[in-house]
Amino acid sequence: MIRFIQYAPQKYRCETHEIPETVLSRLDRSAINWLDIDIGAECTWINQLADHFHLHVTLQDDILHHRHLPKSEIFDDHLFMTLKMLRLDRETMQVSVEQVSMVLGGNYLLTFQEELQGDVFDEVRYRIEHAMGKVRQAGADYLFCRLMGVVVDHYVEILEFFREKIDELEDIVLGHPQEKNVKQIARLKKEVNRVRRYIFPLAAEVARLMSDGDPWIQRATHTYLRNIYDHVQTVYAGMENLGDRLKDLMDLHLSRISHDMNRVMKTLTVVTTIFIPLTFLAGIYGMNFRYMPELEQPWGYPALLLLMLGIAAGMSIWMWRKKWF
Amino acid sequence: MIRFIQYAPQKYRCETHEIPETVLSRLDRSAINWLDIDIGAECTWINQLADHFHLHVTLQDDILHHRHLPKSEIFDDHLFMTLKMLRLDRETMQVSVEQVSMVLGGNYLLTFQEELQGDVFDEVRYRIEHAMGKVRQAGADYLFCRLMGVVVDHYVEILEFFREKIDELEDIVLGHPQEKNVKQIARLKKEVNRVRRYIFPLAAEVARLMSDGDPWIQRATHTYLRNIYDHVQTVYAGMENLGDRLKDLMDLHLSRISHDMNRVMKTLTVVTTIFIPLTFLAGIYGMNFRYMPELEQPWGYPALLLLMLGIAAGMSIWMWRKKWF
Amino acid sequence: MIRFIQYAPQKYRCETHEIPETVLSRLDRSAINWLDIDIGAECTWINQLADHFHLHVTLQDDILHHRHLPKSEIFDDHLFMTLKMLRLDRETMQVSVEQVSMVLGGNYLLTFQEELQGDVFDEVRYRIEHAMGKVRQAGADYLFCRLMGVVVDHYVEILEFFREKIDELEDIVLGHPQEKNVKQIARLKKEVNRVRRYIFPLAAEVARLMSDGDPWIQRATHTYLRNIYDHVQTVYAGMENLGDRLKDLMDLHLSRISHDMNRVMKTLTVVTTIFIPLTFLAGIYGMNFRYMPELEQPWGYPALLLLMLGIAAGMSIWMWRKKWF
Amino acid sequence: MIRFIQYAPQKYRCETHEIPETVLSRLDRSAINWLDIDIGAECTWINQLADHFHLHVTLQDDILHHRHLPKSEIFDDHLFMTLKMLRLDRETMQVSVEQVSMVLGGNYLLTFQEELQGDVFDEVRYRIEHAMGKVRQAGADYLFCRLMGVVVDHYVEILEFFREKIDELEDIVLGHPQEKNVKQIARLKKEVNRVRRYIFPLAAEVARLMSDGDPWIQRATHTYLRNIYDHVQTVYAGMENLGDRLKDLMDLHLSRISHDMNRVMKTLTVVTTIFIPLTFLAGIYGMNFRYMPELEQPWGYPALLLLMLGIAAGMSIWMWRKKWF
Amino acid sequence: MIRFIQYAPQKYRCETHEIPETVLSRLDRSAINWLDIDIGAECTWINQLADHFHLHVTLQDDILHHRHLPKSEIFDDHLFMTLKMLRLDRETMQVSVEQVSMVLGGNYLLTFQEELQGDVFDEVRYRIEHAMGKVRQAGADYLFCRLMGVVVDHYVEILEFFREKIDELEDIVLGHPQEKNVKQIARLKKEVNRVRRYIFPLAAEVARLMSDGDPWIQRATHTYLRNIYDHVQTVYAGMENLGDRLKDLMDLHLSRISHDMNRVMKTLTVVTTIFIPLTFLAGIYGMNFRYMPELEQPWGYPALLLLMLGIAAGMSIWMWRKKWF
Repeated sequence: MIRFIQYAPQKYRCETHEIPETVLSRLDRSAINWLDIDIGAECTWINQLADHFHLHVTLQDDILHHRHLPKSEIFDDHLFMTLKMLRLDRETMQVSVEQVSMVLGGNYLLTFQEELQGDVFDEVRYRIEHAMGKVRQAGADYLFCRLMGVVVDHYVEILEFFREKIDELEDIVLGHPQEKNVKQIARLKKEVNRVRRYIFPLAAEVARLMSDGDPWIQRATHTYLRNIYDHVQTVYAGMENLGDRLKDLMDLHLSRISHDMNRVMKTLTVVTTIFIPLTFLAGIYGMNFRYMPELEQPWGYPALLLLMLGIAAGMSIWMWRKKWF
Repeated sequence: MIRFIQYAPQKYRCETHEIPETVLSRLDRSAINWLDIDIGAECTWINQLADHFHLHVTLQDDILHHRHLPKSEIFDDHLFMTLKMLRLDRETMQVSVEQVSMVLGGNYLLTFQEELQGDVFDEVRYRIEHAMGKVRQAGADYLFCRLMGVVVDHYVEILEFFREKIDELEDIVLGHPQEKNVKQIARLKKEVNRVRRYIFPLAAEVARLMSDGDPWIQRATHTYLRNIYDHVQTVYAGMENLGDRLKDLMDLHLSRISHDMNRVMKTLTVVTTIFIPLTFLAGIYGMNFRYMPELEQPWGYPALLLLMLGIAAGMSIWMWRKKWF
Repeated sequence: MIRFIQYAPQKYRCETHEIPETVLSRLDRSAINWLDIDIGAECTWINQLADHFHLHVTLQDDILHHRHLPKSEIFDDHLFMTLKMLRLDRETMQVSVEQVSMVLGGNYLLTFQEELQGDVFDEVRYRIEHAMGKVRQAGADYLFCRLMGVVVDHYVEILEFFREKIDELEDIVLGHPQEKNVKQIARLKKEVNRVRRYIFPLAAEVARLMSDGDPWIQRATHTYLRNIYDHVQTVYAGMENLGDRLKDLMDLHLSRISHDMNRVMKTLTVVTTIFIPLTFLAGIYGMNFRYMPELEQPWGYPALLLLMLGIAAGMSIWMWRKKWF
Repeated sequence: MIRFIQYAPQKYRCETHEIPETVLSRLDRSAINWLDIDIGAECTWINQLADHFHLHVTLQDDILHHRHLPKSEIFDDHLFMTLKMLRLDRETMQVSVEQVSMVLGGNYLLTFQEELQGDVFDEVRYRIEHAMGKVRQAGADYLFCRLMGVVVDHYVEILEFFREKIDELEDIVLGHPQEKNVKQIARLKKEVNRVRRYIFPLAAEVARLMSDGDPWIQRATHTYLRNIYDHVQTVYAGMENLGDRLKDLMDLHLSRISHDMNRVMKTLTVVTTIFIPLTFLAGIYGMNFRYMPELEQPWGYPALLLLMLGIAAGMSIWMWRKKWF
Repeated sequence: MIRFIQYAPQKYRCETHEIPETVLSRLDRSAINWLDIDIGAECTWINQLADHFHLHVTLQDDILHHRHLPKSEIFDDHLFMTLKMLRLDRETMQVSVEQVSMVLGGNYLLTFQEELQGDVFDEVRYRIEHAMGKVRQAGADYLFCRLMGVVVDHYVEILEFFREKIDELEDIVLGHPQEKNVKQIARLKKEVNRVRRYIFPLAAEVARLMSDGDPWIQRATHTYLRNIYDHVQTVYAGMENLGDRLKDLMDLHLSRISHDMNRVMKTLTVVTTIFIPLTFLAGIYGMNFRYMPELEQPWGYPALLLLMLGIAAGMSIWMWRKKWF
């Protein structure tokens, strides 16, 4: 499926086609043509489109396979950019990744996604349809930046979500840490690292567009690109900071857990240590020697009890002063 | 609310307005116009100001939203800079962050803050009012540097406060560390990291102003900029150093706590170990076998007591020589 | 053994020779000549070939000895590149390394391997033989890129294999970690580090070919080189990410193991601690003092049992509320 | 106090003044004038000097306040450099820091220190006075390099002192580590980090002098600057190496201490574990059941003793073969 | 002592002198003059040589003092290079360091070593004497590269030795680690770090020779320099890799040791825990209360024994199912 949006300051058309031929026949040089292509279903289209727009062979490969990190490449006929759209599942704290590829020509923009419905581009489509803001007046390069912008705005959202989660975890760990927090920290760390990996090359690619994007990106659009660049940098710095905090949090958690454990072991060992000598004394007077003079004395039993009390008190005080419990 | 300060070597006027129109009508090309704007209350002003001073759309966004790291941008009409004003609450050891945005034109300076009262700019205002120092003679770019300067001076103060706190903690940890120190170290670490994150991009931005700030920043002002740059570098290096020291401190703390724990456990285990064989011996002679020749001997009891004493002494000496307690 | 493949758009010849003379006599300037040389067996050939193709002395050394990291060097007569072919043994999780050296001239390509059979180049040979794709039309530089491409594709495969293994280990460690996982993590870490070391210099060498490869690499082939560059970068970033994850995994494993241990020790110590005072009490009334009034009372025994039960219950409740077990 | 040294190949004068006027009146354009100024006492002098030598306002600030890291700045009238003079107290292993600022003009050098007596510059003064070496023949820039040189030589000394201390500590930790070593390591680490922080920016500043120092630094002096640069680099690399070694040492120490602890705990636990079943057996035959057939047998007691011996021997052998003690 | 070797394609002379005068008188502009100087003994020579070859003052210092890291410097009259010759003592696993300084002029090469006998240059001397290879035909710069080459080849040897040692240690640690391995790892780590520190600056210096070495290094020699550069890079990367592996190995060792310890402690604690309640029960029936009905029953003793067996079995099964031993 191809969603085809054609617009000019005074013109707007939005159609959904299933065959590229009909779309290609309606392309209009005097308007901006946005082809939003679903690559989930069928690949034969791609070849047809690739031929029409002169897409390089390696580029088709980049669009269809998703292992690539974000990258941009400037060809004679168009500019190619691929980046990662991140979607957060707030329940499982997992981030799902979808690749978006964009081909920007003079008056057209091709976007390749895996799923067209319910995506983050709806906001831009709405603005085009209702001629809100600057988008209908501006060129295809502005649309291109705008779409990158909404993708990057989602990164900010994910950053904030992670930050909140880590703030919560920090409070728990400084309060009453539990074993399960280890797993939560480990999972968050993995997600933060994954997201960071997708964002890292993006800043360099956006910077490259600013310096080498000519003639596909017009000078007037640079301010928007610079803005996106700043956002990406901020998100990346934020993610790095979260990564460091998670590392510290893990260390703190281990330290707190080990402290709790130590306190328990110390108390229990103190109890054991106080009773050991007393039990020994009781054992002594439980022996069956015929000649044990103390056993015959009427004061023997209470004297021993007093002695035991004294030993227990003495040991307790000594340990107390040594701050052992 | 807008605090409007207009000055020239022989002129000084300070007014507080609530509507931008009256301020805009009083702008004077032959004097320096400083508009100190409170953006906490109302945003409609911003649009009006933005139109008058030709502020770019993305720039309005940067002024009103505070997620950005420090950054600067040079436009045709003016120079934009945003940085973080840090305020230290000495009680809770927390640093609160306020964003300050500045727009520097030929003869005007706009500053956008969230709160006007009791801020760090009072010192500069006082100097302007009483024509102290060079500020009344110099241009808007000098005022701009001066304001950056006071913001950065606050960073130094925060650095020194953190350093003192860490010195104190270091003494405690090398002396008698307690569990609560872990939390203090963790909190300080978090604050230091946060502040570091705000300061890091500032040095690069100030350096950029020096190389690209022309014509908004005059050459004569470069020495002041260079000074601010050095301060920012020093603060950043200092913060990094504090971060490393806090990391070492945490490790040291854990090592000290674990050493204390080990000493306790070892002593207690030594006590237990000495009494275990003695209790066993007492148990032997507490048995009720009919034929236990030792029990019948008059020397049985004192002999056993002597044996026990010997065992205890032997074990103690052996452990002592092995330095086990 | 030398496998000699000579091709042009309309021509294909594939022979296997044991003496270089016959090969050298058949070289054809109007076609692409690919000499795939097995250097496992005999070195005398190399000298002969080196003389014919003007290979530098140090270069012969690089081809025969395998300690070098990937590197490229541009000579007047040809371009030299050496890289590592990685082969994964899925059973032992070990990566075996084979060095491939390539000498690219105007219309010839020499490849030096340690073993010719069953290697990753078969795919390219098949494409040449059956004139599939672009390879028969293009020059020796395209063949050169193509061969590099298949080597790098193997890196991606190894990366994916490692990633799966680490995902599995992560699940185990978050579930029921065992001691043997430590060894698995350590081994994987070693392999990932090794592979990373071989890949790291490759990106820089490929980038160098793009900027300095002229005239051996034609402009049209740059897109393929850039593609290989991106792959190498992606694999390297992926390997670094895996390295970090393995480090985190090791820490997590230790934390989980130590937690398990702590839980066991705590439970056991709690049991011991509850019985110690009870045993002491039993010891008291096992003493043989003549005057122990409690022993004579009919309620003595049940009262003591009740007291013991009370002590055990009290301690258990106290520990329970302290969450000690 | 100002120590004023004026020299030329055939001329030498050394005076100590308390008022700058007398010094300024004696400045001689045909000789090298070195003003060594004590800034500990009074600041009014500085203003007077600053006016005479056209020192910038920010520069006066840099001279009087000591928070700055090493930095250099090149003005129209002179070159400014500030660096840290380090003094080692071998008793407390503490490094005290003194700031030295230098202003190099065409034929004069101002040095600002906190204390004039007993400093490291004595050596240079002696060489000037006795016309030793090249210094009397060369210009003010050579004097400037020479003074930097002696400051940096002190760094080398400190580095060597730290290295020796760490070697000693390493021997102790590999031999018989004690708890107090932790504190020593922590203190050394702090000092090494502090010194490293002062040295780090110096290399860059010296490099800057070499490239931009013209016309204040003559080409002939570059070899000396390059030498200082190499020294600074060597010291910095050495300090970094020491930092890493101290980190490793701390880890090693913890590992050794924990090993010692483990050995003790294991031995003690083994003793306890052997006696626990024996004590239980003794408890069994200490029970007062009426019908315990074993108690009546004449062989009961020796048989039990033999059994106990057997159990103890069996457990000991089992543990021995498991290498538990 | 000076070993003086003079050679040209058709000429060879090798002499050993004790006074530099005789050597200096025999220098021949039409041949290559190699002065191999032993600086262990006497320094007066150096001054004489320095005067003859116009060596700079700082350079004499560099030759005689050995604290410098490898560095090169290009003078008007010659090129200076100093690097570290490493010698491995396979017994103690210690690397001894000797500084080699080289001064390369148009037709002469001075090498300064601490000891002349049994060094790594013998191989080159032999090749010169017997006119093997290219060395007799080539210039002094080739000799210079050749000598650097043999020094660097020794680094490779040391790298391989370390790698083997670490492989051995890895096998031990994954098998049956012992406490002494900690010391071995620590020592290896120290040696690897030391060697790495000596190698690190060398790559940069060799690269500098390639770009700035003109006219002392001829273009034809660049391929050899580049080869040395690659070797140094490979060795450095290898050393870094070894450093990382040793770090991982230390962590792994600690984890293994702690696991062993845990297993012992757990088993012993399990034994103790099972016997504690049994001993308590025996204690109960060892009490001397007059009214203890169970004691009078004939089934009392066997019933208790059965109960004890039941408790022991129950606890054992429970612990077994919890995988506590």
